[in-house]
Amino acid sequence: MKTIKVIKIGGNIIDNEEALAAFIKEFASLSGPKVLVHGGGKLATKLAKQMDIPVQMHEGRRITNVDTLDIITMVYAGKINKNIVAQLQANNCNAIGFSGADGNTIITEKRPAKTIDYGFVGDVKKVNTNTLEVLLNNNLTPVFCAITHDENGQLLNTNADTIASELAIAFASNYETELYYCFEKNGVLKDVNLDDSVIEHIDNNTYKTLIENGTIYEGMLPKLNNCFHAINHKVKKVCIGKSQMLFHTTTKHTTITK
Amino acid sequence: MKTIKVIKIGGNIIDNEEALAAFIKEFASLSGPKVLVHGGGKLATKLAKQMDIPVQMHEGRRITNVDTLDIITMVYAGKINKNIVAQLQANNCNAIGFSGADGNTIITEKRPAKTIDYGFVGDVKKVNTNTLEVLLNNNLTPVFCAITHDENGQLLNTNADTIASELAIAFASNYETELYYCFEKNGVLKDVNLDDSVIEHIDNNTYKTLIENGTIYEGMLPKLNNCFHAINHKVKKVCIGKSQMLFHTTTKHTTITK
Repeated sequence: MKTIKVIKIGGNIIDNEEALAAFIKEFASLSGPKVLVHGGGKLATKLAKQMDIPVQMHEGRRITNVDTLDIITMVYAGKINKNIVAQLQANNCNAIGFSGADGNTIITEKRPAKTIDYGFVGDVKKVNTNTLEVLLNNNLTPVFCAITHDENGQLLNTNADTIASELAIAFASNYETELYYCFEKNGVLKDVNLDDSVIEHIDNNTYKTLIENGTIYEGMLPKLNNCFHAINHKVKKVCIGKSQMLFHTTTKHTTITK
Repeated sequence: MKTIKVIKIGGNIIDNEEALAAFIKEFASLSGPKVLVHGGGKLATKLAKQMDIPVQMHEGRRITNVDTLDIITMVYAGKINKNIVAQLQANNCNAIGFSGADGNTIITEKRPAKTIDYGFVGDVKKVNTNTLEVLLNNNLTPVFCAITHDENGQLLNTNADTIASELAIAFASNYETELYYCFEKNGVLKDVNLDDSVIEHIDNNTYKTLIENGTIYEGMLPKLNNCFHAINHKVKKVCIGKSQMLFHTTTKHTTITK
């Protein structure tokens, strides 16, 4: 089986022009099939402010009304995605931008409103990798933004970490799949204030303990849930840390194992 | 040789939700390989106003400064492109959105500033259909917005009519290519005020006469130049009229011939 890398980058890279340029240069040079998934960074919030559209949040998650969905679609699928694709092309990486609607790759369903109505947010129902595999076999590199669709014409906002893990799981049928979450920290930290206190390995058992003793909380919880979802569904390797872990093998990071 | 249809739609369809839904339904049902190219409509101008960014025009053409390029990228490649793709998917047409940066399909160069500096506007240098043909062979339908790139990381705004004709010319090496320009009129009119006065055939000779006697002027000139550019470069069939011409053979329209 061929190996594929699914790599997710977030706001710390997207919002910083120099960091993004440096990342893109190194990402372009990675050999073998690869897929990039990008979050949205702060641009959508900035644009909403410029347009006087209030941003509603609930426990750190955006509530996506019609206006917000438009903004997210414009910023994620438009500005960010196309600029990343153009920069990858400039680095001789034949990139091709994707939302989940393109090629019917990621089908989601609108999250039902319970106590909180998150609005136009989609939970993943199905991932189709056929078209992606055709492109990968032709040496193209898919670049995903965090927009999906419901097959009935509705675009939906979907968490980029979730998209990365679901893509990785779908690829795991035909590839040895590696999933990398790049963020602003060196990995999962024992002490959130000590950037050096990286926990180098976490498995399902130690994960439970780390939640119980309060080491892992808040924003790290959904991210790690995505990691374990992947590693428990045939993804071979899941790593979390700074993007340098991809390019320099000595960079400390957290590896997730079963 | 297989036949391919390259179809361009403009503001009269994009800006009208019902017209767009009706068009998409019929477009989805067209058999055989096809490519859709869409313009931008009025949304970009509306967004620029909302964001207090002045729109500069010169002879009906937009001057694209950095802010305008951002807006165009968001609206064309983001909102419009992804909504069209999602709606095509809802009609069982496996669409995939493209800018010229995606798959390195359309390479342009920034137009040199002469008397007028049009800003970030790209003139077509090269069209690569390899990736598009792979997708078409897999029953996918490319949907192009009017954004291109220069291979050095710069996105550029490019006229959608031009993109349609250049794509058609590039496909003409491997396909019997048909190019359709859908707009708000029934075709080229003898009398601009009489919607029924369609000129059904124009060839290179009659074109010259129609320019000389003032029948064709202003906005129709660049559109028809694109038509003749295509028909003079191996495109088999070029038509201009209302989108109904695609679906109902009795609909009057203008056919361009050598």
